[in-house]
Amino acid sequence: MTTVRDASFELFRERGMTTIFGNPGSTELPMLGPFPEDFRYVLGLQEAVAVGMADGFAQASGNVTHVNLHTAPGVGNGVGAIFNARANRAPLLVTAGQQARSLMTMGATLTNRDAVEVPKPYVKWSYEPPRAADVPFALAQAIHYATLPPAGPAFVSIPMDDWLQEVQPLDYASQIARAVGGRARPEPRQIAALAARLRIARRPVFIAGPDIDASGGWDAAIELVESQRLPVWSSPPTGGGRIGFPESHPAFQGMLPPAVAPLAEALAGHDLVLVAGSSVFPYYPNIPGDFLPTGAELVAITCDPDEAARAPMGEAIVADVALTLRALADELAEPSDREPPPARVELEPPPPGEQLSGGEVHGVLAELFPPDGIVVLESPSSTAALRNQLRLSRPGSYYFSASGGLGFGLSAAVGVQLAQPQRQVVCVLGEGSAQYAITALWSAAAYGVPVKFLVLRNSEYSILKWFASLENVSDAPALDLPRLDVAATAHSYGVDAVSVTEREELHAALADALAQDGPRLVQVDVAPGMALA
Amino acid sequence: MTTVRDASFELFRERGMTTIFGNPGSTELPMLGPFPEDFRYVLGLQEAVAVGMADGFAQASGNVTHVNLHTAPGVGNGVGAIFNARANRAPLLVTAGQQARSLMTMGATLTNRDAVEVPKPYVKWSYEPPRAADVPFALAQAIHYATLPPAGPAFVSIPMDDWLQEVQPLDYASQIARAVGGRARPEPRQIAALAARLRIARRPVFIAGPDIDASGGWDAAIELVESQRLPVWSSPPTGGGRIGFPESHPAFQGMLPPAVAPLAEALAGHDLVLVAGSSVFPYYPNIPGDFLPTGAELVAITCDPDEAARAPMGEAIVADVALTLRALADELAEPSDREPPPARVELEPPPPGEQLSGGEVHGVLAELFPPDGIVVLESPSSTAALRNQLRLSRPGSYYFSASGGLGFGLSAAVGVQLAQPQRQVVCVLGEGSAQYAITALWSAAAYGVPVKFLVLRNSEYSILKWFASLENVSDAPALDLPRLDVAATAHSYGVDAVSVTEREELHAALADALAQDGPRLVQVDVAPGMALA
Repeated sequence: MTTVRDASFELFRERGMTTIFGNPGSTELPMLGPFPEDFRYVLGLQEAVAVGMADGFAQASGNVTHVNLHTAPGVGNGVGAIFNARANRAPLLVTAGQQARSLMTMGATLTNRDAVEVPKPYVKWSYEPPRAADVPFALAQAIHYATLPPAGPAFVSIPMDDWLQEVQPLDYASQIARAVGGRARPEPRQIAALAARLRIARRPVFIAGPDIDASGGWDAAIELVESQRLPVWSSPPTGGGRIGFPESHPAFQGMLPPAVAPLAEALAGHDLVLVAGSSVFPYYPNIPGDFLPTGAELVAITCDPDEAARAPMGEAIVADVALTLRALADELAEPSDREPPPARVELEPPPPGEQLSGGEVHGVLAELFPPDGIVVLESPSSTAALRNQLRLSRPGSYYFSASGGLGFGLSAAVGVQLAQPQRQVVCVLGEGSAQYAITALWSAAAYGVPVKFLVLRNSEYSILKWFASLENVSDAPALDLPRLDVAATAHSYGVDAVSVTEREELHAALADALAQDGPRLVQVDVAPGMALA
Repeated sequence: MTTVRDASFELFRERGMTTIFGNPGSTELPMLGPFPEDFRYVLGLQEAVAVGMADGFAQASGNVTHVNLHTAPGVGNGVGAIFNARANRAPLLVTAGQQARSLMTMGATLTNRDAVEVPKPYVKWSYEPPRAADVPFALAQAIHYATLPPAGPAFVSIPMDDWLQEVQPLDYASQIARAVGGRARPEPRQIAALAARLRIARRPVFIAGPDIDASGGWDAAIELVESQRLPVWSSPPTGGGRIGFPESHPAFQGMLPPAVAPLAEALAGHDLVLVAGSSVFPYYPNIPGDFLPTGAELVAITCDPDEAARAPMGEAIVADVALTLRALADELAEPSDREPPPARVELEPPPPGEQLSGGEVHGVLAELFPPDGIVVLESPSSTAALRNQLRLSRPGSYYFSASGGLGFGLSAAVGVQLAQPQRQVVCVLGEGSAQYAITALWSAAAYGVPVKFLVLRNSEYSILKWFASLENVSDAPALDLPRLDVAATAHSYGVDAVSVTEREELHAALADALAQDGPRLVQVDVAPGMALA
């Protein structure tokens, strides 16, 4: 006899989903045991961590990833991380156990009473099958929803007594066999028209967004940029969950500022702004002004109808970013005779102070960073400095929470490293941001995941002090963070850790950490304030 | 000129809401600064902690309590704790900042795009004012919703540029002045009829639920029980967020088991089951059977229409629990001539083993527990042992997550202690459950909140192993929890902590912790498995 459980694991196996992240409870046990030998379970001690690890794994593996949570409270604890995963376009199958069907109507303890509502509005689909026999079909649908562009989380709630019910081949076989793909290339007319506009544009500019990386579009982007001699900016780092263009490339100009007026100013003089794989734009904070410089037109390529609809200006083409860039590059293979882009304007680093700056720390990291290394970043006050110092230039080298939510970095780093065991993951955190998913350190230790954590400790929420100054807010409470010691906390979770203050110490500690097997953490005291260069 | 901010803080002041819990972000800064001197802000390093602290504070103070979160990601991280607060009937005003109005339609970074959906289905009301001038009115409404029975969380999303807008007295004055109360006494006929049934019942029994404590009904319950010579059970501990009857009282029989068949068995022989302030019943796990013993009738008194509607059997009276018990006790002042209740059947403690059992640990705690102490409990495998050993017998002495969700205990303990500075709070945790809100230790240290934490470490999710055995599930992954050291983690957050293994060590460490100012943590290694006695 085939059970719901047999058919569901066969589906997971067929889709390559043999790593399951989760935090189990009683309502999940009938799914989990006995656990198939060809599957791996990765435990997070809190649900934000389980979802964050799955998010990192999904993005870095490129495959839909399963995270299993504990009925209502488990999904509830995970909603923030599901919000991040939605912004990150991570294809996640989120499942949760549910009370036994016979106890649901009375709302017995741990009944997920409005199960499909809990993860909304952050999942693409949310469902609870009306019968046990529908569970494999519902899981198959959720996987399709999660992977169809734009990718994101989908949710299925599963009553705990469903798993051992019998299913017939009709209930699951055709579902497991189905393949569904949604990558679209724009109609040829649109490509030809856009190519014609690029050819005649006087000073076009290319804005590289995170979906170039997610769609596999680096080569096409570089080819197009080089043949058309386009200067390149990255989309503002606030929404730049991934890097879509080599930041050491001679055409690269830097990161666009994230507010309306400064962004338009940075694009002054351009007549055609081509945006690939980014919203237009992830603005923040609120500095009003014209959206574009005078005389500029904008065309955005995005796989996301929502991004296309809500942009405040410009045109949009909804299609796969890599396929569209490939089509454009092919159409525009003949080199342009425009002037090559100017050299990047280098920021002046701040003068050395008594304490290391974030920029100096990232300068040390840049000296030691392995060529194929991966950064997972959640250090809001030093995001810009890290990007400027490291100039990451390989695909799949950078993961950042595109949502603005915290708790992604520490947990996602564990998932990214599990998905990319051959590449070194360095997770860069503030000591404040590390707290939102701190127990991911235990998962790193328990599973021997060799992430190297670099924690910049400035004893404050620097980014908030910067915002407060920008917003003319004085005397807000709780912007200082005294007495956090992430090295000690890491040690308590089984991760070897050191705390340093000087440049040489930092260099030695980072070099040592990178040379070791297993996870390591280096905490470095830095000066307060924002680090841009 | 009066701003939205002025009017809102005046409202908070008027309602006694001068302690604000939160985790701030940029979208909350215009509310927070400059922070009024007569207000106190308590920072949680993750939103589950901020909400959990507020939940404990609200329950232990009996006053509506404000928790302020950071737009979409902050509310998302707090949803699990909001779910707990709903089950606990904690009157919470949950607010969150929102992107500036001018940036919302384009969905700029940190826009809470479907703000009112995020905390659903766990809030009683969810709103985003359409104009800045409506913010004080919306806050006033949310406070009414939060406090009207059954109490619970209510949510308001507030665009960050609203706070400094001007408001007119018409916008706020009458709202601040309003008083709204909803405690209802049943119609006299219902009381008389129920009293008559109790008088003639042969073997009535009283089930004490958590809302006796929340409504202030201890005295009436004791008076009724004593005059009518009723044996008393507590409602099953799974849903018993508070204790409604003195557990050392001669009429007290123990805790009802939380599954259908065993619960009916425990009530065998009774002809009238009077339930006060509990759902009927917080069943779990699934052991089917008759809901009541043959010949028994059931009447439940609850302030919650939802509890009344979804119960699978019996009658229900929807009214304030304390007022109803008072009316019944007055009606039944003449003592009954029934036989007094039998003595409680005492559980045999397990024979001493190599490691301390949970029961032995709680026996030590009982020896040292201050008479007016408060327990905040989240140790699923030793809940029963703690109740059986401590026999808490004063109002407001026990807080437990009625939802079944984890993360409440550690954070709520900090809030309870802040609300009840004159009473000693002892927070009892498993080393696994401690992880869901671990950073609350930092808040305890940072604000000098003198909670004493007692952590039982058994290196496993014991409750899940017990459930797995009950559900015939074998070989589920991740039920062991090696290498957690909550004492070391506490120390890293600034809480003095010791780890012990022997009874004498435990006694000395607990006695020492209780004698000290400030927070302290004692971790004790215990034998695996469930501790009932």
